[in-house]
Amino acid sequence: MQRYFAQSIKNDLVFLSEDDLYHIKTVMRMKNNNQIEVVFNEQLFLCNIIDIKNNIIKTIKQVSYINDKRIKTRLIIPLLQEQKMRLIIEKATELGVDEIVPFVATRSKIKLDDEKFGKKLERWMKISKSASEQSKRIDIPHISNLKHIEELKNIDGERIVCSTSENVENIKNCLKNNSTYDKINIVIGPEGGLTNEEENKLVDLGFKRVSLGKNILRVETVPIVVLSIINYEFME
Amino acid sequence: MQRYFAQSIKNDLVFLSEDDLYHIKTVMRMKNNNQIEVVFNEQLFLCNIIDIKNNIIKTIKQVSYINDKRIKTRLIIPLLQEQKMRLIIEKATELGVDEIVPFVATRSKIKLDDEKFGKKLERWMKISKSASEQSKRIDIPHISNLKHIEELKNIDGERIVCSTSENVENIKNCLKNNSTYDKINIVIGPEGGLTNEEENKLVDLGFKRVSLGKNILRVETVPIVVLSIINYEFME
Repeated sequence: MQRYFAQSIKNDLVFLSEDDLYHIKTVMRMKNNNQIEVVFNEQLFLCNIIDIKNNIIKTIKQVSYINDKRIKTRLIIPLLQEQKMRLIIEKATELGVDEIVPFVATRSKIKLDDEKFGKKLERWMKISKSASEQSKRIDIPHISNLKHIEELKNIDGERIVCSTSENVENIKNCLKNNSTYDKINIVIGPEGGLTNEEENKLVDLGFKRVSLGKNILRVETVPIVVLSIINYEFME
Repeated sequence: MQRYFAQSIKNDLVFLSEDDLYHIKTVMRMKNNNQIEVVFNEQLFLCNIIDIKNNIIKTIKQVSYINDKRIKTRLIIPLLQEQKMRLIIEKATELGVDEIVPFVATRSKIKLDDEKFGKKLERWMKISKSASEQSKRIDIPHISNLKHIEELKNIDGERIVCSTSENVENIKNCLKNNSTYDKINIVIGPEGGLTNEEENKLVDLGFKRVSLGKNILRVETVPIVVLSIINYEFME
């Protein structure tokens, strides 16, 4: 069943965005009495389309679900080419990421002023909303404002940085002792990698350098691989 | 250093494809005396561009490398939309896949006759060659002809099929006892999944049904996740 995130629900009446209404009417060609799933405030509702012309959708009942996720993930990525950002946001959302934090990296080729970043952020949030609906999540990953490495000082949770330096511990050894945390922060570098200075700064902030093995991966593949691995390690 | 797969090497003289020569001259704008890495017959050579106008490239020396890959992977996928096929081939190549086998699945929306398949195959092989060069492999994954499920009867190695059926063992439990094999075959279904009949047929052929966990993934995400997990499980 098609799932949408509501803007609000008041007295059983569901309010969806213009985009979602367009999707229901024009893409899905739904009719009166068709049912949809609606998420609001991380609660899931089965809903009925009462009057599609006048956008009247009502909840039928709340659906219970079990949220037994063991690990929260925060992905900290440099600004990349738009196509790569979109792939990462979509796939990370599918893989259950909780937060995406874009950060300023020396070797990142993309530089954005506040206005341009604001517009991109808006588009990225649409992608994560749509991917959340597709993958039947009950929450949408948060995408934060652009941060500098120094601002990662006070974040909570375990901290790793994907490194291509030699003689770095592999991620398997690092994740083995995972019983002591329920949140993990993952920093990924841009094409060309983090500078030594950046990597050292992160180590000073408590990030452990980890290697993903011997395959040479494109930058946009790395987040998908890391999130797959973390989900696997925390699988029960 | 840029890496290319040669068509042949004869008396230290390197023969590259037209595409690679174009890449060297026009994309990379290389000059005489620039060096490149060339792979031929799974052997790696450091080479020198002697005369770029006349395509004369010579080997300088053979470079030794250690191939300590513990597991071989064969990815068995339905025909999908071209964009998804390309993403899978590129990412699977980065993640070290050894062979990709397209198979005929009932719910696959893409149907190709022999001629059309032949053309696609040619394009897919270019993608896997280029991704192999990018990720510094010394081999190019083989992409086989279109197969029917019955033809998977005699393949060698461990066999799993990614299933969304309920009460299926998770992949973690399945991979735990991995010391008994060095090759694994992974079947992935199309959008809408394998039919029950197809899944049962595969089970009869010795494929174990495994679940990838609770995230609902797009079909093109599945191979990337599975290969990441297998690499991780076999990481030393």
